[in-house]
Amino acid sequence: MALRFEVLATQGESRLGRLTTTHGVVETPAFMPVGTLGAVKGVSPQELGAAGASVMLSNLYHLALRPGIDVIEKLGGIHAFTGWSGPILTDSGGFQVFSLGALRKVDEGGVTFRSHLDGSPLRFTPENVVEMQERLGVDIAMVLDECPPWPVEPGTAEASWLRTLAWARRARAARREGAGAGGAGGMGGLFGIVQGSIFRGLRERAALDIAELDFDGCAIGGVSVGEPKDERRAVVEWTAPLLPAGKPRYLMGVGTPEDIAHAVRCGVDLFDCVLPARNARHGVLYTREGVLKIKNARFRDDPRPLDEACGCPACARTSRAFLHHLVRAGELTGAVLATLHNLRFYLDFMAELRQSIRLGTLADALTFDPLEQRSS
Amino acid sequence: MALRFEVLATQGESRLGRLTTTHGVVETPAFMPVGTLGAVKGVSPQELGAAGASVMLSNLYHLALRPGIDVIEKLGGIHAFTGWSGPILTDSGGFQVFSLGALRKVDEGGVTFRSHLDGSPLRFTPENVVEMQERLGVDIAMVLDECPPWPVEPGTAEASWLRTLAWARRARAARREGAGAGGAGGMGGLFGIVQGSIFRGLRERAALDIAELDFDGCAIGGVSVGEPKDERRAVVEWTAPLLPAGKPRYLMGVGTPEDIAHAVRCGVDLFDCVLPARNARHGVLYTREGVLKIKNARFRDDPRPLDEACGCPACARTSRAFLHHLVRAGELTGAVLATLHNLRFYLDFMAELRQSIRLGTLADALTFDPLEQRSS
Repeated sequence: MALRFEVLATQGESRLGRLTTTHGVVETPAFMPVGTLGAVKGVSPQELGAAGASVMLSNLYHLALRPGIDVIEKLGGIHAFTGWSGPILTDSGGFQVFSLGALRKVDEGGVTFRSHLDGSPLRFTPENVVEMQERLGVDIAMVLDECPPWPVEPGTAEASWLRTLAWARRARAARREGAGAGGAGGMGGLFGIVQGSIFRGLRERAALDIAELDFDGCAIGGVSVGEPKDERRAVVEWTAPLLPAGKPRYLMGVGTPEDIAHAVRCGVDLFDCVLPARNARHGVLYTREGVLKIKNARFRDDPRPLDEACGCPACARTSRAFLHHLVRAGELTGAVLATLHNLRFYLDFMAELRQSIRLGTLADALTFDPLEQRSS
Repeated sequence: MALRFEVLATQGESRLGRLTTTHGVVETPAFMPVGTLGAVKGVSPQELGAAGASVMLSNLYHLALRPGIDVIEKLGGIHAFTGWSGPILTDSGGFQVFSLGALRKVDEGGVTFRSHLDGSPLRFTPENVVEMQERLGVDIAMVLDECPPWPVEPGTAEASWLRTLAWARRARAARREGAGAGGAGGMGGLFGIVQGSIFRGLRERAALDIAELDFDGCAIGGVSVGEPKDERRAVVEWTAPLLPAGKPRYLMGVGTPEDIAHAVRCGVDLFDCVLPARNARHGVLYTREGVLKIKNARFRDDPRPLDEACGCPACARTSRAFLHHLVRAGELTGAVLATLHNLRFYLDFMAELRQSIRLGTLADALTFDPLEQRSS
């Protein structure tokens, strides 16, 4: 079996899990750093591992545009290409394609669009999206889905869901049997995606639809597209409990530590978000005492590490004052050290959540909550 | 003694040396990666050490503008501030100040200029430049010098040298006795700088002038300012042999591996250059088989590491194809991996030069020569 998931412990809806792939084991709840083009911005594969990452996320849409699936396949697959030897999940790129607006056209068979790079025409279908991810040799592939914008009319959301469900069935059927090696030319597992915008009835129905299709895991998509926090949380609360208990659940594109902690309490196992890396590049740094806006003048001569309890390369050797200096000066090393720090923070945070579920003390563990309100 | 230099072996004019500072030992000939603002662009202190660097170069002018000497002194000095615990040499910033053109005014007492950042007025004198470097706690400080442009009239170059010599005497006198701790508030050693543009008589006289002043080491400045390669090499050939044999010799701002190898044959011990890092960011990568312009289409599906013999993070895990992909896409990780590679190449190259002097096989060692002609 190419992908195995075991629930080792629970506390309420929260689960401590172990996801076994041919490229290694992922302890869940887990955060997947985002390497859209095959690398987390500013981070080498070695540093990604050193930060504590066990799985990396990449993106089929972006890799298909450049360098192209042929190139990566020829080079031995996505692991050989990126130098990241651990598990890799690729998003299908549905979200990116549907963000193209006028550049794309949807029909029942799939979506036709133009590259945002050079305008060349491309077509994604439920079948070729599975096939391309198999050729990349990813550990976890995602089906092609339609991600409705927010806000959207209920009728539009429902029609969109019916198409996404039809696509999910075709993707499931397209999956090559025996293609589960998880190496080049093989694939570990295929996840379905629940959509339905912020409509409870539609989300619940979609969750049951996807649960029925016997995917290797189920994702909640269509969140973090601009909706208010309460709506986003409600979607997670409605959807997660309806997904199969024995399979991993993945909340796509979420989020803040607070949002992640909430979703873990709802039984979600996997997360990805550009937030820690993007915030790092803008000097917004996570610490156990709250968020630091490191460009703030009060850090100019602050000799303390960003976070006393952090073991990242920035905290091990340098100070808030040094990061303040580098980030304000626009120095590349500022972005690099800040990114390494924020990733480490997120990955440490996930480890703390796992330990709390193990000990049955999850509520007590949220020492960062409410992090969003305590920035400085 | 705050700075000790021993010549361990020679081959012709080439010297294998050991420079001992309070922050560690530098085996020479050595290359000093350039961390203008306290960090090599894109590189953490940990990665700098892992690449094999034993000494880092920084810049008084830039650090005085931001974050300011007061801030660094308050934070415990330049080593505590940057997180680089090995030896640090700071250039005085004469080169930068004289590049400001209309923004600066020279008089006998020093140079008055406006910050290139915010236009605020500043004044560097031979005395305060020594004092500021003492306050930073650098291991090697450089005197304030005037760096004439190229080309320049002989008479102008001579007048400039007379002023620089007077400044060198004042800098020597200004050095606090007992300030040699090489920690915050102390300084390891002070180097004089030979100028004289491309005029042989003036360079020779300047070398003897500086040799007389009993600095802890002597630098050859005023090269790599636009002059042809042959002129640059001639300056090194005239000057280096006239500098004290028992003290380290530093060729400022040079250069290509070929230029460095030439200068080592003339008896130079220390080098710095932005070239490996700047070239890396533009996708120009050094290898033992010549220079690779990694954006070139022929690397699109090249599975080989940049250099089979290299142990840098890029070569250990990834391919030319991956670097091609990242650099073309403008991904931050492309700049980071390329920089780590080029630095490692330069530092390995210096180690090879040292080993060759040790074995008396220097001429045979220049396997990269003529590197400049073999780019692809």
